[in-house]
Amino acid sequence: MTLPRKVNLEEQLGQMDDYFQHRIIADINEFEAKLVKVKGEFIWHHHDDEDELFLILKGRLRMQFRTGEVVLGPGELIAVPHPLEHRPVADEEVHLLLIERSGTRNTGNVANERTTTAVRA
Amino acid sequence: MTLPRKVNLEEQLGQMDDYFQHRIIADINEFEAKLVKVKGEFIWHHHDDEDELFLILKGRLRMQFRTGEVVLGPGELIAVPHPLEHRPVADEEVHLLLIERSGTRNTGNVANERTTTAVRA
Repeated sequence: MTLPRKVNLEEQLGQMDDYFQHRIIADINEFEAKLVKVKGEFIWHHHDDEDELFLILKGRLRMQFRTGEVVLGPGELIAVPHPLEHRPVADEEVHLLLIERSGTRNTGNVANERTTTAVRA
Repeated sequence: MTLPRKVNLEEQLGQMDDYFQHRIIADINEFEAKLVKVKGEFIWHHHDDEDELFLILKGRLRMQFRTGEVVLGPGELIAVPHPLEHRPVADEEVHLLLIERSGTRNTGNVANERTTTAVRA
């Protein structure tokens, strides 16, 4: 049988142009690993049922909550539990590895022009 | 409410002494993110139902399958689908971030002296 393929994060990120566009790079049962480049402010949203793990690969991410913010740098991660409202803010370009249930909507409870469908590598 | 705490991977790894001992650093619904330091050969095993994602943080990991091996370095990941038999081999110390269902047994279908229970950070 074909061996599972490895994924090089830098290589994948080098092929990604659009900010906030999720790219699925691996499936782990009913979960997905995704890469995303972000820059600027995202929108306030929450997920009714899904937790989200953000691992920072590059840059500095401010994960804002209604009661404060957590600033993360490379090699740091945060798990945002549902249904906590949050807003990722990147003052510079930030590269993230995201782990969450397959099909989780990027804008959570909100559907607007920032809502996108993840693409596959 | 208390803000979610961030986790610094290097800081956690600096507190870890035992090879092959999983440390749970985050929960994402029914999944866990774990850190593990490995060195030497692990055992051949498979998981009946659980996929496993391995992200290499440091060192070079040889993920062996019965039909070949995949060599991974820092910034590379592999998702090993169930029920594929595999054996991680680390010729030097390797640091890994592991994503899998909560409660996944490290030795899969095998229960022996290499079987350990994950600890919480």
